[in-house]
Amino acid sequence: MDVELQLAVENLLARYVHALDEGQLEQWTEFFIESSIYRITTAENHARGLPLSIIYADSRAMLRDRVTALRHANVYEAQRYRHTVSATLVERDGPNTARAVSHFHVLRIMHTGETILFASGRYLDRIRLNGAGGQPQFEEKIVVCDSRRFDTLLAIPL
Amino acid sequence: MDVELQLAVENLLARYVHALDEGQLEQWTEFFIESSIYRITTAENHARGLPLSIIYADSRAMLRDRVTALRHANVYEAQRYRHTVSATLVERDGPNTARAVSHFHVLRIMHTGETILFASGRYLDRIRLNGAGGQPQFEEKIVVCDSRRFDTLLAIPL
Amino acid sequence: MDVELQLAVENLLARYVHALDEGQLEQWTEFFIESSIYRITTAENHARGLPLSIIYADSRAMLRDRVTALRHANVYEAQRYRHTVSATLVERDGPNTARAVSHFHVLRIMHTGETILFASGRYLDRIRLNGAGGQPQFEEKIVVCDSRRFDTLLAIPL
Repeated sequence: MDVELQLAVENLLARYVHALDEGQLEQWTEFFIESSIYRITTAENHARGLPLSIIYADSRAMLRDRVTALRHANVYEAQRYRHTVSATLVERDGPNTARAVSHFHVLRIMHTGETILFASGRYLDRIRLNGAGGQPQFEEKIVVCDSRRFDTLLAIPL
Repeated sequence: MDVELQLAVENLLARYVHALDEGQLEQWTEFFIESSIYRITTAENHARGLPLSIIYADSRAMLRDRVTALRHANVYEAQRYRHTVSATLVERDGPNTARAVSHFHVLRIMHTGETILFASGRYLDRIRLNGAGGQPQFEEKIVVCDSRRFDTLLAIPL
Repeated sequence: MDVELQLAVENLLARYVHALDEGQLEQWTEFFIESSIYRITTAENHARGLPLSIIYADSRAMLRDRVTALRHANVYEAQRYRHTVSATLVERDGPNTARAVSHFHVLRIMHTGETILFASGRYLDRIRLNGAGGQPQFEEKIVVCDSRRFDTLLAIPL
């Protein structure tokens, strides 16, 4: 078992969800390499091998655009999110690459205080271990949501 | 602190919940030794020392039977589950054995997309560190559910 | 990455939530140094730098008083709680001190079996690494709740 690798990946995931839940969306894009793939899909589509995505980006520039759109839509401030990440399995995939699978779920806390289960599923990640500044970064992140019913149009990334 | 032991147990638990949530029930039985104890009980019964179980198996053969029954009942496909495991405390219990206690909860995602909190509680595990293929396996797994109200008849194992 | 430090802090947090969820409230106070700060506040107040607290204690004696009050109110037994802790980020803060930030959420399981999302948020911890008995203890624990709507008057600590 590669203890250092396991904890480095868990640390990356922890910083990732902290950035999202604290609303640091610009900082969130920094967790991806420039040519990264970011996809949100459903378990149903993923199991069938369908390429359908709820959100698809194949560069960090697209993620930056999405953040700008969210900032202008100005709905982000009205609610909070709280991610939980667990059960992270890591495998080395090359000298400087790893693959990881994790379970996640997200609570959404409305400004009224009401809390709902917003989304759950798996993160399927390919990670460059020595990314910008020597830190690990996502080369690919596929977010496979358990439910097909949810509203991401105006929501934060997952 | 035994870093390797801690992470080996967390890895076992992670693979266990991944197998369950991906519907790999046959593979799920492989996490147990042949003479393993698997029990689901409630916190109320457990606190009182009552031997009442919601589910009880004292061999892997019984777990395999249960999986066969679930496959024939054919209800498993209609919903998804998502486990979270956290707060795992590990203690070495012998040269090749450890005990672990974890918190878990499980979401159930219906085919309609609706998500509910299905169960929560503690895993009380006795683990053989050098099981089949040198991998850790459960000698005993007691699932202590917080709520006494739930439906496991047709559900996946916890 | 300091593997030992990371796992020592995760272990402290795991023991902390186990004590709470098993109703070992007297033992819970032992996780704090004598002059510890314990505060529950909301994300809204915390973001604005407001010193308002839902609960505030600046010594372990105050925490012990709170436990005594909860024991006399005698409501604690009527429900269960289940904490999840994840995404723990740790930084060394001095030769014998560390800071940690974690995500948490708590389920409340009523005696009827009904389960609700009770609270979610972040733990902001300052930890003395060599506390009583050489074990890590909290010098300061600020519980920042996502929602401003909740009832802690008669509930367990978070």
